Amino acid sequence: MEEQAARYFLEIAYNGTAYHGWQVQDNAISVQQKLNEALAVLLRAPVETVGAGRTDTGVHARQLYVHFDSAAASLAQGERFVHSLNALLPHDIVVYRLLPVASDAHARFDASARSYEYHIHFQKDPFLQHQSWQLRDRPDVARMNEAAKDLLGKQDFSCFSKSHTQVFTNICHITHAAWLIEEDRLIFHISADRFLRNMVRAIVGTLLEVGLGKKPVDHVKSVIASQDRAKAGTSVPACGLYLTKVSYPYIT
Amino acid sequence: MEEQAARYFLEIAYNGTAYHGWQVQDNAISVQQKLNEALAVLLRAPVETVGAGRTDTGVHARQLYVHFDSAAASLAQGERFVHSLNALLPHDIVVYRLLPVASDAHARFDASARSYEYHIHFQKDPFLQHQSWQLRDRPDVARMNEAAKDLLGKQDFSCFSKSHTQVFTNICHITHAAWLIEEDRLIFHISADRFLRNMVRAIVGTLLEVGLGKKPVDHVKSVIASQDRAKAGTSVPACGLYLTKVSYPYIT
Repeated sequence: MEEQAARYFLEIAYNGTAYHGWQVQDNAISVQQKLNEALAVLLRAPVETVGAGRTDTGVHARQLYVHFDSAAASLAQGERFVHSLNALLPHDIVVYRLLPVASDAHARFDASARSYEYHIHFQKDPFLQHQSWQLRDRPDVARMNEAAKDLLGKQDFSCFSKSHTQVFTNICHITHAAWLIEEDRLIFHISADRFLRNMVRAIVGTLLEVGLGKKPVDHVKSVIASQDRAKAGTSVPACGLYLTKVSYPYIT
Repeated sequence: MEEQAARYFLEIAYNGTAYHGWQVQDNAISVQQKLNEALAVLLRAPVETVGAGRTDTGVHARQLYVHFDSAAASLAQGERFVHSLNALLPHDIVVYRLLPVASDAHARFDASARSYEYHIHFQKDPFLQHQSWQLRDRPDVARMNEAAKDLLGKQDFSCFSKSHTQVFTNICHITHAAWLIEEDRLIFHISADRFLRNMVRAIVGTLLEVGLGKKPVDHVKSVIASQDRAKAGTSVPACGLYLTKVSYPYIT
């Protein structure tokens, strides 16, 4: 008798420096490919994984959930399975836990909220090269936080979306957007129900224009109203961006 | 009239991951080579540098002093020179300052003390891959600190020296040696007047044998007395090792 496949979530994290983003693609190494390969070895069968969302080349994830289906008996011992998976995965990808979920649970469609951080430093630091963006001039943080208030709420964020992206809607609900100073670093925290492609990096670039005095504090409001990507600031580099949290109604 | 050359110290730091150590060598990229190349561009002449000491492949430095001689007028403006040098150097090497020193000041011979740290973590962490060593089992820190007391003082440390190294003496004066717990990480701090090649990594390997219960607490004492490298523990990997401080009587 064949075992029936069950659905599982994996909670993972990765340093995106060496990868062409999360999503499997031809001719480029992705985090998903590395994960699929390790799972296939352990489960002795090809595995299809679905992630909570994509991250671009060089972007990091401190938390990402992934789902897959399998009937393998080895999944019954979650801790041992996670340990074996970590041993097979490269050092820059880690699996924290395996969760059995309902057969219709979906890592992408069920995610109710996502959070990102963007890290900036000012003094050249040989240990932050791929983990934070070095900026020369110091922006006015209070001014940026004032401008960031205009991001809050349910709005059409076409202005911060990569053009030619096929999505059904550009409406997102941003619930939190603020800069914090941590020692000599500046960290932008943002949470929403969903994000458009390239959105956080475009928002950070736009806020920096305000912080560096190139644009007025009400600039964000007018950029959003314009629905025009050309009005927003230049996207900041991938190295400073971290997906930090993905929330589900049924995961604590 | 030709300007007379003056001597300068550079305070630098680097992430050693991408380099075959500090010292210039054939067929391998070193930190010193990168520094020499950048200096030659700025000073418009080949430059010979002397570092406070060597670091091996993959070892990091949070502080290293280097001396060189030059008659270039651009050295008069120290801050501007440092800024230009940092712009020429790769992201993983930083120069903090340029100091004019006496013409007989010597970065290696005048160094009166050196400090190292060795970083260990336990949970797989995709962001620490090249900056700390992941250990599976947790050693007994109190036991290692008890054993580390036997390292203190002026002793012959042949037991921790790479064999076939040509040095005049294996006597070093260790002034501090202790483990500290920082969040989920374990950091070994050690200071001495000088260190032998591979010495810190051999000491850490030996203390871990004590911490993991494989050897008694008085093991370090008997290893030192033996003057036999074969009695000491296996050297731990380079990725966790940081040169953190080099002291000179005339630099504050």
